[in-house]
Amino acid sequence: MSRADGDREQLYRILDTGLLCHVAVILDGVPTVRPTGYGRDGDTLYIRSVAAAEGLRRAAAEHMSVCVTQLDGIVYGRSAMQFSMNYRIVTVEGKAIDILDEEGKRRGLRAVLEQIAPGSWDYARRPDAEELAAAAVLAIDLSAARVAVRTGGPCDRTEDVAAQQVWAGELPVARPGWDTPVPAADLGAELAVPAHIRDR
Amino acid sequence: MSRADGDREQLYRILDTGLLCHVAVILDGVPTVRPTGYGRDGDTLYIRSVAAAEGLRRAAAEHMSVCVTQLDGIVYGRSAMQFSMNYRIVTVEGKAIDILDEEGKRRGLRAVLEQIAPGSWDYARRPDAEELAAAAVLAIDLSAARVAVRTGGPCDRTEDVAAQQVWAGELPVARPGWDTPVPAADLGAELAVPAHIRDR
Repeated sequence: MSRADGDREQLYRILDTGLLCHVAVILDGVPTVRPTGYGRDGDTLYIRSVAAAEGLRRAAAEHMSVCVTQLDGIVYGRSAMQFSMNYRIVTVEGKAIDILDEEGKRRGLRAVLEQIAPGSWDYARRPDAEELAAAAVLAIDLSAARVAVRTGGPCDRTEDVAAQQVWAGELPVARPGWDTPVPAADLGAELAVPAHIRDR
Repeated sequence: MSRADGDREQLYRILDTGLLCHVAVILDGVPTVRPTGYGRDGDTLYIRSVAAAEGLRRAAAEHMSVCVTQLDGIVYGRSAMQFSMNYRIVTVEGKAIDILDEEGKRRGLRAVLEQIAPGSWDYARRPDAEELAAAAVLAIDLSAARVAVRTGGPCDRTEDVAAQQVWAGELPVARPGWDTPVPAADLGAELAVPAHIRDR
């Protein structure tokens, strides 16, 4: 077993292969957590949807905690107390920056879009001035982000190991894949699924 | 598109098919979020690992927010601003109860174990009195839990739909599967993978 802080490259790898993060802020005095999309550009993490509500943006500007979790497997122990999960986690916290300038918003929106749907910034219609003005984009600095990783098997008691009566090890989670794309109800029949979606 | 509160059966289905939750508490004045295993028994949600540290248990007793997220697909819009994610989310918040009695701890530990590794409570060695005394188990009432669901395609502007130039729809996430079990390094060669793990 190893639970350890990783290096910078590992931090980027975990973030760049994730699809959503969980964001926590203090709202009306209590902690609130919800999932949302995110994107990375260099050492900045951008999020979008959580920022839709004014109260949430103010709360995030005070302090925001973000967690990206990749579950790698279930650890089976010989005893109930030694079951665990293998994971890679990135956490970052601090004051969120409310991006106000058009170029900054564009950079953030692009990062978030390319994270959930690679190839889409160049394929779909980009935001116009009106959409950019209405968009709420938050950013947080990744300099202080932390990585936590657990790998390997269970930490069973010596006597449980010696008994050799219970199977122990790891059941790895298969890499997530994609099912067949479902066209929108109002999509013209002549529009085929583009390669960047079909081959994802 | 529909984002709506669901019924009780849906709440249970979302919880019973998840593997981990994200828990937020206020620690040293700031919101903290981390993933952990959980389990359900009736209308009680149990968590374990987050309770390891004394400070976290005290914070959770004040107020804890829990989120279980199932990502179902990526919504591709005709324009960058209309991309989204289809998901099913359960959120519950309130004061966590620190379970102190042995029978209550046993019930909670069983729920958490059977959630991440079904069939393991009857297969592996159960907690002894010493382990139960040391275990920290938190519970939260699901009566006030809320369900949020998004399904369907993008909500594109009329003119973007009419242009029929960009493919739009949903790319569903494939149901997560499992890779081949990896035996622990100190496992006796004569121990085969039991059926409840092999056939998961």
